[in-house]
Amino acid sequence: MQVIETIRALQLLSEAERGAGQTIALVPTMGALHEGHLALVDAARARADRVWVSIFVNPTQFNEPSDLDAYPRQLATDLAACRERGVDVVFHPSVEEMYPDGAQTVVTVRELSQPLCGASRPGHFDGVTTIVSKLLLAAKPHVAVFGEKDYQQLAIIRRMVSDLGFDVEIDGVPTVREPDRVALSSRNVRLSDASRAQACVLVAALDAAERAVTAGETSIERLLFLVRNEIGKAPLARIDYVELRDPDSLSAVTEITDRAALLALAVGFPAKDGDSESIRLIDNRVLRPARGHVD
Amino acid sequence: MQVIETIRALQLLSEAERGAGQTIALVPTMGALHEGHLALVDAARARADRVWVSIFVNPTQFNEPSDLDAYPRQLATDLAACRERGVDVVFHPSVEEMYPDGAQTVVTVRELSQPLCGASRPGHFDGVTTIVSKLLLAAKPHVAVFGEKDYQQLAIIRRMVSDLGFDVEIDGVPTVREPDRVALSSRNVRLSDASRAQACVLVAALDAAERAVTAGETSIERLLFLVRNEIGKAPLARIDYVELRDPDSLSAVTEITDRAALLALAVGFPAKDGDSESIRLIDNRVLRPARGHVD
Repeated sequence: MQVIETIRALQLLSEAERGAGQTIALVPTMGALHEGHLALVDAARARADRVWVSIFVNPTQFNEPSDLDAYPRQLATDLAACRERGVDVVFHPSVEEMYPDGAQTVVTVRELSQPLCGASRPGHFDGVTTIVSKLLLAAKPHVAVFGEKDYQQLAIIRRMVSDLGFDVEIDGVPTVREPDRVALSSRNVRLSDASRAQACVLVAALDAAERAVTAGETSIERLLFLVRNEIGKAPLARIDYVELRDPDSLSAVTEITDRAALLALAVGFPAKDGDSESIRLIDNRVLRPARGHVD
Repeated sequence: MQVIETIRALQLLSEAERGAGQTIALVPTMGALHEGHLALVDAARARADRVWVSIFVNPTQFNEPSDLDAYPRQLATDLAACRERGVDVVFHPSVEEMYPDGAQTVVTVRELSQPLCGASRPGHFDGVTTIVSKLLLAAKPHVAVFGEKDYQQLAIIRRMVSDLGFDVEIDGVPTVREPDRVALSSRNVRLSDASRAQACVLVAALDAAERAVTAGETSIERLLFLVRNEIGKAPLARIDYVELRDPDSLSAVTEITDRAALLALAVGFPAKDGDSESIRLIDNRVLRPARGHVD
């Protein structure tokens, strides 16, 4: 497994691989790899000859400096996990490599970046789309793989790739879950024990909503009340948002029809002792009234 | 000469050319080709095996719908000029091809886009950087060639390419001038005869400034007064801006030292009869107090 630290070296390797007829699948990550990331690696392996993983904690997508500082970093463990899983190349650039002195170029996906996590985290998605552009231009992969847990991020990246004409396919991979069905996240390790125990309320709320819709619920008001009520059963949970959106445009859904609708949740929980911040967890499900969900 | 209308077809051709070891130089234009553009074609020929010209009147870089409508379009003449000059590929996409339904992604170079033409034409450079990104991703050239007449545009594109890590070299080509040294521009044909006759006042003002600096002028106030006075000799001229800026950062220059300084002008002139708009001409020169200009 090669570890590469500069854009130039990665571009040269990409040109060489492409010239030799090899296909490349890129898995962009911020490290702190868990089984969710490794499922992306497996999906990448199924799609291309070469699997490249980038590990870069991107400062421009953090709103709070404290969140950036607290983001878990464990390069040696991550490299071992990549090696174990058969990754061919890890791209691990410095902040200075990705954001050279005076860097001032930003890629923005205007409408899709506004609601949901975009409303809670101003500028977050500009940071994501800018760094993903840089990673795509550095690696020049044939495929890039992202998790469906970050549903809005995936929708935004698909739109950006289509709008700008990046010559890459974007693959989404279903969310990987713990035994209690909490979605895997690098942030889970920062939860207090009590928070972690109560975090399964997100997926329970998604389940409740799905059951209701399958049973014929047509009132958005009642559905969102049900979801909020379900989350409320966890005394530590603080709802950031609970929203029903169009799965493609992310515009607000005003009635439940037989079209699919995205139910997206963001909920804060207290962190471990010594970490004053609230840890924000997200989860989502596409509700398909006619046929049940595909998750 | 091949004429290609879709991004996909251009990307496939680029991959094939690159795979065969051929280098590609792209000349992005909005058509209405004149000898200035053809000098870019010649420069491209000197830099690469294949010369590709894009012809696309980009709606997002026009502030005024009337300016977009009035922009000269002459595809058959442009194609003949390209063929004559040995161009290998012309990329001539539709607006729908470059801006698919729902397109909402914008590339912004934040600071460099603010002053000069950016102040006069809000959003103009976002349109330029967005379309140039799309053209670079469509053609995947080794080199892209731009004219130094649009100095700020060239500086912004260099910054964007460096910031995002596009794997392309950007070449600037000196301004081509008419016999009376008016800078070539597709907008010149829209000037009234009297305006066209007086348009040489821009280059005369640049000359006057250069002579003054070479002769030891150190006062910015006096220098700008001299330039404005020179432009004022043309009764039809209406100054948009006359500014002295750092050639790299485009930040305001507050004193004349032995460092180079960019003198940039934008001046409006009345259009031909039946065209109510003022035609905005630009020109610039890098003043090098110690050694004279390099233009």
